[in-house]
Amino acid sequence: MPQLGLLPRRAWAALLSQLLRPPCASCTRAVRCHSQGTRDLSPQQMVVREKILDLVVSCFKRHGAKGMDTPAFELKEMLTEKYGEDSGLMYDLKDQGGELLSLRYDLTVPFARYLAMNKVKKMKRYHVGKVWRRESPTIVQGRYREFCQCDFDIAGQFDPMIPDAECLKIMCEILNGLQLGDFLIKVNDRRIVDGMFAVCGVPESKFRTICSSIDKLDKMAWKDVRHEMVAKKGLAPEVADRIGDYVRCHGGESLVKQMFQDPRLSQNKQALEGLGDLKLLFEYLTLFGIAKKISFDLSLARGLDYYTGVIYEAVLLHTPTQAGEEPLSVGSVAAGGRYDGLVGMFDPKGHKVPCVGLSIGVERIFNIVEQRMKTFGEKVRTTETQVLVATPHKNFLHERLKLIAELWDAGIKAEMLYKNNPKLLTQLHYCESTGIPLVVIVGEQELKEGVVKIRSVASREEVAIKRENLVAEIQKRLSES
Amino acid sequence: MPQLGLLPRRAWAALLSQLLRPPCASCTRAVRCHSQGTRDLSPQQMVVREKILDLVVSCFKRHGAKGMDTPAFELKEMLTEKYGEDSGLMYDLKDQGGELLSLRYDLTVPFARYLAMNKVKKMKRYHVGKVWRRESPTIVQGRYREFCQCDFDIAGQFDPMIPDAECLKIMCEILNGLQLGDFLIKVNDRRIVDGMFAVCGVPESKFRTICSSIDKLDKMAWKDVRHEMVAKKGLAPEVADRIGDYVRCHGGESLVKQMFQDPRLSQNKQALEGLGDLKLLFEYLTLFGIAKKISFDLSLARGLDYYTGVIYEAVLLHTPTQAGEEPLSVGSVAAGGRYDGLVGMFDPKGHKVPCVGLSIGVERIFNIVEQRMKTFGEKVRTTETQVLVATPHKNFLHERLKLIAELWDAGIKAEMLYKNNPKLLTQLHYCESTGIPLVVIVGEQELKEGVVKIRSVASREEVAIKRENLVAEIQKRLSES
Repeated sequence: MPQLGLLPRRAWAALLSQLLRPPCASCTRAVRCHSQGTRDLSPQQMVVREKILDLVVSCFKRHGAKGMDTPAFELKEMLTEKYGEDSGLMYDLKDQGGELLSLRYDLTVPFARYLAMNKVKKMKRYHVGKVWRRESPTIVQGRYREFCQCDFDIAGQFDPMIPDAECLKIMCEILNGLQLGDFLIKVNDRRIVDGMFAVCGVPESKFRTICSSIDKLDKMAWKDVRHEMVAKKGLAPEVADRIGDYVRCHGGESLVKQMFQDPRLSQNKQALEGLGDLKLLFEYLTLFGIAKKISFDLSLARGLDYYTGVIYEAVLLHTPTQAGEEPLSVGSVAAGGRYDGLVGMFDPKGHKVPCVGLSIGVERIFNIVEQRMKTFGEKVRTTETQVLVATPHKNFLHERLKLIAELWDAGIKAEMLYKNNPKLLTQLHYCESTGIPLVVIVGEQELKEGVVKIRSVASREEVAIKRENLVAEIQKRLSES
Repeated sequence: MPQLGLLPRRAWAALLSQLLRPPCASCTRAVRCHSQGTRDLSPQQMVVREKILDLVVSCFKRHGAKGMDTPAFELKEMLTEKYGEDSGLMYDLKDQGGELLSLRYDLTVPFARYLAMNKVKKMKRYHVGKVWRRESPTIVQGRYREFCQCDFDIAGQFDPMIPDAECLKIMCEILNGLQLGDFLIKVNDRRIVDGMFAVCGVPESKFRTICSSIDKLDKMAWKDVRHEMVAKKGLAPEVADRIGDYVRCHGGESLVKQMFQDPRLSQNKQALEGLGDLKLLFEYLTLFGIAKKISFDLSLARGLDYYTGVIYEAVLLHTPTQAGEEPLSVGSVAAGGRYDGLVGMFDPKGHKVPCVGLSIGVERIFNIVEQRMKTFGEKVRTTETQVLVATPHKNFLHERLKLIAELWDAGIKAEMLYKNNPKLLTQLHYCESTGIPLVVIVGEQELKEGVVKIRSVASREEVAIKRENLVAEIQKRLSES
């Protein structure tokens, strides 16, 4: 028994809990400090993130979207029966006051709730925000339990496939803009998926669960998916094999035409509707100049329950494995589809508002960009400071404080060391290690002459300028660089 | 009993639950749709928010801060014993997998955890993020259970009061920048508060709980606070009255000097330390040119447990009640202080990292600005669209699609109506109602001549330009406006 007298009781308790704690699952530390599947973002990571999010949001704005936000948690009843088999992954809050709440699982369902509750019939909006899913975290693949989503959606009754084509155009613009390498967008239609199930002989009650299995084809081999459908979900083997023939099909616009001729599929009304819309979609994609990026893929099913029409998913064709770069398995980097029934689920009278949208998998994109920067040893500045206010002499704190306030008030990004008497060398090193380009130096000589020195960190050149011209001179230099 | 046969069972259940639901506490709708104290943010609100956050963040960056982020929830044990009497307001998550989690209550404690876990000894960072508190929501005053915080903190062992003075400078820059009207920053020091308690005869075990009472002085009258301290917290009436004499004191630098001479306070070592630091602080604030905005106020206590030194809180001196504007009670709009012990609570060996920081109460600021805009009938554009691609003729969808893709690819913000054959008037009305300044028009005549028309929505002037010069011409016009 340790001598409790040596340390206060609370310190012992803390020490013991430290010793008994398992290692952290989210970082490399020996004691657990994060909830599973969550992590902090360092300043370096934030800089990369900000650049990527800026590009994504400016594309959304280019297409006329408005911003909006919804709370992090919703009444649980608002989220139930919207996600299908994934619902179990929702985070619930403890009942602390009679309300049953859950953290939002995506940004689409809260958007649909917003439209219904405000009786909005038409809206083009984007939403960047965190969502939470209790998935088993496999951090190497870039899957976290807390992650950021960037969504763009078009709600409203419009002529067919025009908003849908724009969603695919946006995905192309963003993936081109991010320069992640070559990509492909798989498209399909829920009505074709359901039609295919029907003509293959899947009982209607099993449509959604078989759809969830098919959705795993990008991560699992066909034989494993087949096994799941037959052994776990009770599908007849011959039915599974018929599905297998279809889901191997992928191609361009010509495959749409081919499927119109398919002896079984062409007998199904739903499938024909889906094929008709895909034909129109390809027409518009050709006008947008992006048809060659799009592949009609019968294996694409999308896991979420709420899709009703066209669905799509963008995949990188090869992960960027240039000289020395480790390959990184990333899966899809953007996805979406049409969900015409979701808003109606929130409306007391069931009034529908057709919607189509997309979500950018920014978390995976962050990982790719970070890994690439690591491989190439790229560094980013984590601050934007333009000027360090420095002194070579003791007892110049007051002068530095007056100077820096003047710079701040003029909108110049400036720092100083929080020491009464820092060494000049320490101050210059600080500029070099943090990338500050200019130093303003005030010392005894300068004070006497009514000047300050401006030093360029890169060239080490120094010039003396009049104290009263300091702000103008710095602004001039910054606008030139 | 309703005839269940007429509607599907699920529809009946939905209908019943709608009927039984109480009205929503967060909005004006008849059915409950939001969790208490949370709300959606409309595109209009988002535009106001973005402008305010931009101003705040650019000030933080001007002072050399790096960005960072932490998860929305933490292991509950990380947050306990940090907030004092407010801890009961934390949102806990349901135990769904053996981890006890809570939503973050502020951004300061996660920052301290981050520093300790990563053994960071020095850091200047900002953090913009949501936090959650189960306070009884009084929405008119701008208090929500989910709200945004904007924090700036300086961690590290530095010479006294230099970072502290910078925090106050930042608060002034932001409040000046936002043009909310005149403001005042109250400062005090926890050591002066504790010293005052000691010399008044408060038992040490009651310091923190009496501190919480004193903190309510901005919302409650002295006699109610006195009653709480005496009747509920068991303080002797004469002790309460002695405190009462002190907390009525407020003034500038001269009050600091006066308190140095106070017969009781000057006998207390802690209080003297605090007064010494405040004297130095006022010296630096004078150099920064902001001393006149600062008031030494002995009634300022700050509710949170973790403060150890200087504390401050900014209040608007009068809510902006110009012609016709309704007065809005807002309380403090920014606050902060020094917390030198918090990081040590997370370090296994108790190593301390001194910190000082501030938090901008943006939620209240949003409310003030929104209310002002409402009063003055100010409208904001919620999109940034520069060009509408339109046509006066039928069957011009293909031309519009080609045209708009060209604009998007050139980075121009463009929209079109999602109709095969929209009316020209509808298209022009859309520009007027959403503030789009330019229309690109393509019709039969234009197509034949290889031109397009550019129309200015404001002046209604139209000019025909060559199709191939379209992008350049629009870019020219946009750069001129």
